[in-house]
Amino acid sequence: MASLSKKNPNRYFDPDPKQRRIAYELYETVSALPLLCPHGHVDPKLFAKEEASFGTPAELLILPDHYVLRMLYSQGIPLETLGVQRLDGGPVEQDHRRIWQIFAENFYLFRGTPSGIWLADELQSVFGIKDKLNGKTAEKVYDKIEAYLARPAFRPRALFERFNIEALCTTDAATDSLSHHQAIKDSGWKGRVIPTFRPDAVVNLLTLGWQDHIDALSNLSGIAVDSYSKFISALENRREFFKKMGAKATDHSALTPYTEELPPPEAEAIFQRALKGKATEEEAASFTAHMLMESARMSVEDGLVMQLHPGSYRNHNPFIFNLFGPDRGGDIPIQTEYTRNLKPLLNKYGNNLNFTFIVFTLDESAYSRELAPLAGHYPAMKLGPPWWFFDSINGLMRYRLETTETAGLHNTVGFNDDTRAFPSIPARHDLSRRVDANWIAGLVVRGIIDMEDALEMSKDTAYRLAKKAYKL
Amino acid sequence: MASLSKKNPNRYFDPDPKQRRIAYELYETVSALPLLCPHGHVDPKLFAKEEASFGTPAELLILPDHYVLRMLYSQGIPLETLGVQRLDGGPVEQDHRRIWQIFAENFYLFRGTPSGIWLADELQSVFGIKDKLNGKTAEKVYDKIEAYLARPAFRPRALFERFNIEALCTTDAATDSLSHHQAIKDSGWKGRVIPTFRPDAVVNLLTLGWQDHIDALSNLSGIAVDSYSKFISALENRREFFKKMGAKATDHSALTPYTEELPPPEAEAIFQRALKGKATEEEAASFTAHMLMESARMSVEDGLVMQLHPGSYRNHNPFIFNLFGPDRGGDIPIQTEYTRNLKPLLNKYGNNLNFTFIVFTLDESAYSRELAPLAGHYPAMKLGPPWWFFDSINGLMRYRLETTETAGLHNTVGFNDDTRAFPSIPARHDLSRRVDANWIAGLVVRGIIDMEDALEMSKDTAYRLAKKAYKL
Amino acid sequence: MASLSKKNPNRYFDPDPKQRRIAYELYETVSALPLLCPHGHVDPKLFAKEEASFGTPAELLILPDHYVLRMLYSQGIPLETLGVQRLDGGPVEQDHRRIWQIFAENFYLFRGTPSGIWLADELQSVFGIKDKLNGKTAEKVYDKIEAYLARPAFRPRALFERFNIEALCTTDAATDSLSHHQAIKDSGWKGRVIPTFRPDAVVNLLTLGWQDHIDALSNLSGIAVDSYSKFISALENRREFFKKMGAKATDHSALTPYTEELPPPEAEAIFQRALKGKATEEEAASFTAHMLMESARMSVEDGLVMQLHPGSYRNHNPFIFNLFGPDRGGDIPIQTEYTRNLKPLLNKYGNNLNFTFIVFTLDESAYSRELAPLAGHYPAMKLGPPWWFFDSINGLMRYRLETTETAGLHNTVGFNDDTRAFPSIPARHDLSRRVDANWIAGLVVRGIIDMEDALEMSKDTAYRLAKKAYKL
Repeated sequence: MASLSKKNPNRYFDPDPKQRRIAYELYETVSALPLLCPHGHVDPKLFAKEEASFGTPAELLILPDHYVLRMLYSQGIPLETLGVQRLDGGPVEQDHRRIWQIFAENFYLFRGTPSGIWLADELQSVFGIKDKLNGKTAEKVYDKIEAYLARPAFRPRALFERFNIEALCTTDAATDSLSHHQAIKDSGWKGRVIPTFRPDAVVNLLTLGWQDHIDALSNLSGIAVDSYSKFISALENRREFFKKMGAKATDHSALTPYTEELPPPEAEAIFQRALKGKATEEEAASFTAHMLMESARMSVEDGLVMQLHPGSYRNHNPFIFNLFGPDRGGDIPIQTEYTRNLKPLLNKYGNNLNFTFIVFTLDESAYSRELAPLAGHYPAMKLGPPWWFFDSINGLMRYRLETTETAGLHNTVGFNDDTRAFPSIPARHDLSRRVDANWIAGLVVRGIIDMEDALEMSKDTAYRLAKKAYKL
Repeated sequence: MASLSKKNPNRYFDPDPKQRRIAYELYETVSALPLLCPHGHVDPKLFAKEEASFGTPAELLILPDHYVLRMLYSQGIPLETLGVQRLDGGPVEQDHRRIWQIFAENFYLFRGTPSGIWLADELQSVFGIKDKLNGKTAEKVYDKIEAYLARPAFRPRALFERFNIEALCTTDAATDSLSHHQAIKDSGWKGRVIPTFRPDAVVNLLTLGWQDHIDALSNLSGIAVDSYSKFISALENRREFFKKMGAKATDHSALTPYTEELPPPEAEAIFQRALKGKATEEEAASFTAHMLMESARMSVEDGLVMQLHPGSYRNHNPFIFNLFGPDRGGDIPIQTEYTRNLKPLLNKYGNNLNFTFIVFTLDESAYSRELAPLAGHYPAMKLGPPWWFFDSINGLMRYRLETTETAGLHNTVGFNDDTRAFPSIPARHDLSRRVDANWIAGLVVRGIIDMEDALEMSKDTAYRLAKKAYKL
Repeated sequence: MASLSKKNPNRYFDPDPKQRRIAYELYETVSALPLLCPHGHVDPKLFAKEEASFGTPAELLILPDHYVLRMLYSQGIPLETLGVQRLDGGPVEQDHRRIWQIFAENFYLFRGTPSGIWLADELQSVFGIKDKLNGKTAEKVYDKIEAYLARPAFRPRALFERFNIEALCTTDAATDSLSHHQAIKDSGWKGRVIPTFRPDAVVNLLTLGWQDHIDALSNLSGIAVDSYSKFISALENRREFFKKMGAKATDHSALTPYTEELPPPEAEAIFQRALKGKATEEEAASFTAHMLMESARMSVEDGLVMQLHPGSYRNHNPFIFNLFGPDRGGDIPIQTEYTRNLKPLLNKYGNNLNFTFIVFTLDESAYSRELAPLAGHYPAMKLGPPWWFFDSINGLMRYRLETTETAGLHNTVGFNDDTRAFPSIPARHDLSRRVDANWIAGLVVRGIIDMEDALEMSKDTAYRLAKKAYKL
């Protein structure tokens, strides 16, 4: 998969020669722009020390990538044989060359998938590997990556610079001390790695170990969180700290985008029951809905951009969750309703010009039906880029085709790579820029826009919309 | 956006040269056919007097177009600065040149949207403007339109004739006296402007000012509406009057397409509670469901085509609704279920060959799942064209791709422009005819149909299906 | 429609010359592979005796095809005029030439539909007819088909061999004696026609005549089914018999994919109420959900592949159902939820490598949202091909575009023709192979895969995936 396709300067473009020529022309004007990464899950520790390294090729490309793990698991390959740590400390494969061999032999499973495209691109662009990955080439490819990873030029900070990243936003718990971000600052290194405030673990009253998270929140904020009002104060305190550390945004996960404001006494009562370990599922859902309202209020006040990622049924497979923990591929999307669920929040804060509210979805049927109409009306609301499974050639294309006509481009916010897999970042941005260039070229060849518009739209999608929406 | 694209005789067609050639060939056979406008919201007053005019360029192109207003508002432009009247009489921009300037400076927001396409087309086709609209050209374009609008050739009736409109159906409340339609008749002008019967305000028991609407209904029908049975008689009386005035159809809006027949005593009891201002939301929903059944019965009897437009959550944004009233861009679609909701109505009337029941949707996921299968089975049911946000290049294309294989073409009813913006009508029909020609050409180049079939399908989509379904 | 398109060796391919060339190249490598038909509804009686025949052209092409019947009915053609038997024995058209004439005159209704494509292909490929079917050619075409059908070369077994069918799976009630399958075995004919175990009628406690089905189950299994545990034993007994007769799979229909394990006493209690004719709708739904769990357990034990076809609202139109019985086009899809509904089953059996669970859908919005993510995680679950209305050019294409990026190709199971209309089988497989070749060629011209991958994917989609998933 790797070599042949990668050499193609027109990859991911439609085959029509005219559209292809224009797509390439548009792509060329943005391909060298710096990368903005306003939402993702890269570990800031990688950049805390100059000498940090990525480990083995398996640690680089397989173990942190749950897209890869889930596909291999779905085809009957136990996670143990891929070296995934078991929570019970049971035996798992230790030989990273053997893990790599299994991966390479099964790399054909990724034909036509974004993981396949990104991995092939990474191998070639980052490591200069021209062989196609399979069982036969596995060993040789492993050797080559291993040798590169030993070099200073392949350390995280060096790649950060080589990748031309202008800003990389991490995602950090409300109770994170941000010590790695502090270490980056203290080191004098100029790479811009900034935190994002994600309070899910303290907001969701049924999080495993919630009381421990609350205790950590008390410690870090210096506010003893023994009441709802103290909880709010502690969160505001942490947001202020995150802002000082450079944060531009918050991020919120929820099973549904349900929003609802509780009367303060009710919020307090639920919080007190949670402190006694007695909150019910229903109460926790109400509290989450209420805290989305509160988070919007805080954003209006402190200017942090608010992101909402709803609709993922977490840990759908208890067998895997109990053996290996979360984030192993067992999160599954559900149908998601936005029009009624977001009404309270949008009614109260959606007309506020000081507020930016970026909404994502795992339910593509909501693009044209609910999300584009909402983002095309409320000044505060913007539509986030295709998330997770939909960060793909067809997913990105469907997003443009199903949202632009109603919401326009300027109610969207550019691209998010949303990845844990740091070295895949250039491949992801390249794919996104190419898909957008191809889409815009499609508008040109159909006489819908002229080249002047097309060049503006290219810069918007590749760089400017993200910069503006996330205030980078 | 305007000039370059408009000159392109192949605009909106796929770039493949062979498909493009066939698309153009098909388009040419229908481009000069008269326009049938079986559903829309043009004000009949425009045609009541020969000397009626469109007002200023802002009154022509900005103020009546809530697609335009919502996009500008979504980007933080207050409706007051666009001259939208406030209900409280508060100050709004009065200078139409300044409104136009704001619009022109922000016209880039409409790149890739149907509003952008239609407006660019109107400026060029109707007003001969070759400049691209932006902040710099705003003044010059305004002057030109203003000058044209002063001429008799740019009055509504003159444009009606120039646009080659064969029939224009307006949408009129059950309590409308149809005085403008009468004036058109009396004037001797030959333009065919006919009413459509829309009883929503009297059928929905919770309409603001419902009792006033009922009083008006009593006055106009001469039937004192003090009971459910009198209500039915008064509606039948009005339908007869609309028919005499040329009406071919009725139109019904509802939050959901839920249908349910109430026993007469229950309908009467709910109606009596409504007369006392005591109907509940649940009762109103039941009554709406029941009245859809009654409307179907009346259509079976009087032959008026029944249209159903469900799934819009009206006035989602109370801030805007309270300041400016309805129809300012704050209506948002919701998920819509048809299979179970329409079952009572289809079971009772769907097999009746005297009945035509045209169903629309704002939930595209229902096209292939529910609507095409239902329209492809029940003789009475037909599928309306893409509505509202989906009257767009991609929306029209998705409609064809997701409904034709199951429902065929003959269970659909051609195009509706559904607009308040009269001068956009030719641009809307042109776009629809081009998209259909391109789709049909796609079938030819893929060997799915031959040219003989393609030519028939082109005439069906551009003219014949609408004529037949709406009995025009 | 017939002649022109059929001669086109590039039919159904995209028009781009490069993609078309590659599509044809890929198609050529699979076009002569044998046909695997792992799921369908062909009557095994056709093959029980060497001298069986298809009857008249109307009996061959119109009467068994509810796709054809529903389209004609939707356009106001009474089923009586098409010769469909009435349950009350009322008069229906007996003259098959007249039925054929009506069909031919209305064949234009099928423009752009899969039925239109398959029928045109059958007429040409199976019967060598070059005329396009319409009112004028009807008589001549009828004569030609009639003459062919009289020849031994056009008997079912002869066509089975000419069609190069490697295996044809029928769908058979749990209470079917499989006498036709036995007759095929006994005859010494080598055609592989194997049964599939479909227990719907005994599992759904509200099936019309359920007690009769239970009695038949008792008789055939030799187990007096007077309790839930005996019911389970009888089903296991029948499964064993089906396996001996060559069955590889079971098939299950359900209104929703809801799964839930009942405690054995509760299952027994519900079953006892059913034996007394007193089971409620709610109990029946619980029992169906429970039996899906039980069927999965049995599959884990006996190795039969489990298929699930949910989401069809059967007999939506009682007028047609009461006059003509089921399967006349009155089944309509509904919205279908998989993530929560399948959780119990997948949690208990989805990680089991001995289990193959193939899930279908009539709700395409679930492809990218729920089905591809589930199939891309659970080892047991595979995604069935586009079902029913979606076995079409656009339906097949949407399936690939909306599932592959998340689930990969190897969590899908190849093509199912799922037809009652035996002579349409080659046309259906040809269309599917062409659509897949075109899709894969699209990946090649976009630089996503190389030709080596493309050739593998072509063989997978056309043959290997079905062979592996269904253990043929």
